[in-house]
Amino acid sequence: MGAAPPHPRSPTAEADPLKGSQCRFESDRGYVEPETFAATPEPPYTAVVFTSTRTAGDNGYDRMSDAMTELAARQPGYLGMESARDASGLGITVSYWRDEESARAWKDVAAHRLAQSRGRERWYEDYRVRVATVHRDYTLASSDFAG
Amino acid sequence: MGAAPPHPRSPTAEADPLKGSQCRFESDRGYVEPETFAATPEPPYTAVVFTSTRTAGDNGYDRMSDAMTELAARQPGYLGMESARDASGLGITVSYWRDEESARAWKDVAAHRLAQSRGRERWYEDYRVRVATVHRDYTLASSDFAG
Repeated sequence: MGAAPPHPRSPTAEADPLKGSQCRFESDRGYVEPETFAATPEPPYTAVVFTSTRTAGDNGYDRMSDAMTELAARQPGYLGMESARDASGLGITVSYWRDEESARAWKDVAAHRLAQSRGRERWYEDYRVRVATVHRDYTLASSDFAG
Repeated sequence: MGAAPPHPRSPTAEADPLKGSQCRFESDRGYVEPETFAATPEPPYTAVVFTSTRTAGDNGYDRMSDAMTELAARQPGYLGMESARDASGLGITVSYWRDEESARAWKDVAAHRLAQSRGRERWYEDYRVRVATVHRDYTLASSDFAG
C-alpha cells in the first residue's frame, strides 16, 4: 500500500466538489435508482467490496451517496454496483471495474476523495475495503452447471 | 465451470440434512449472531460474493440461513462472513475463505448443496455468485495510508 497523495481535510462550503457533482448529476427525481444485479462481463474483472457501519443521523450522507453512485458510473472501466444496507446499519456495497487500474483511478477522483475524507470524519463508524479479482461467476439460471 | 455432481432435487422431510445441522449447531438462543466485520488475515484470500433477491415469505429461509451460517463457520479454511439485506429484499453476503479450494469444498458440502437446491426452488427470485481473490484490503483506520 503506497502513501496517498495529499487531499483537503477541511473543505469549505464555497469549494465543494460534492455540491458540484450533485448539481450536474442528480436525476430529475432527486433520487438515484439502485441497480439490482450489476451486468458484469465474463471474468476476470475487479470487485471492490466496501463493508461499513454508519454513524447516527444522515448528515448529508444520502446526498453524497447518490452523487457518488452517479459519478462512479461515469468513470472509465466502471462495470456496475450492488448495494444493500441492513436495518441494523451494516451495509455492503460492491463496485465492479474492468481492472485494478480503473478501480484505483476512481479512488483518486477528487470528488470521491473528498467523500472518502468526509466519510471517515462523519458518516462511517467503521469500514473495510477489499479489492479483489473475480475469476469465476454464475447465476441462479446457470448454477446447476457451475463448478 | 465444470459440471456439478448430481444432488437431490426433491428432498423429503424424513431425510433432511438441514434439520440435522440445525439440531446440532443452533445456539441456545435459537438465533445466530451475525458478525459485523469478518476478521480476515493479510491477503491473498478468497471472497465469495453472493447477491440475491428473495421470494415473498419465509418458507423456512431463516432457519436454513442460520444453520448454514453456523455450518460454514465449521468448515476448513473459513475466515468469516459479512451480510446485509435491504428493506427492498436485495441481499449481499460475502464469505471469506483461505483459498479457492476451501470455498469450493464448502459449495459441495451435502447440507449446503441441499440448501442451494432449495434456494433455487423456493427462496431466491434470482442471484449472482462471484468468486474472487482479494489481493489488497484496508480499514477506516488505515485508509489515509492506503493506495
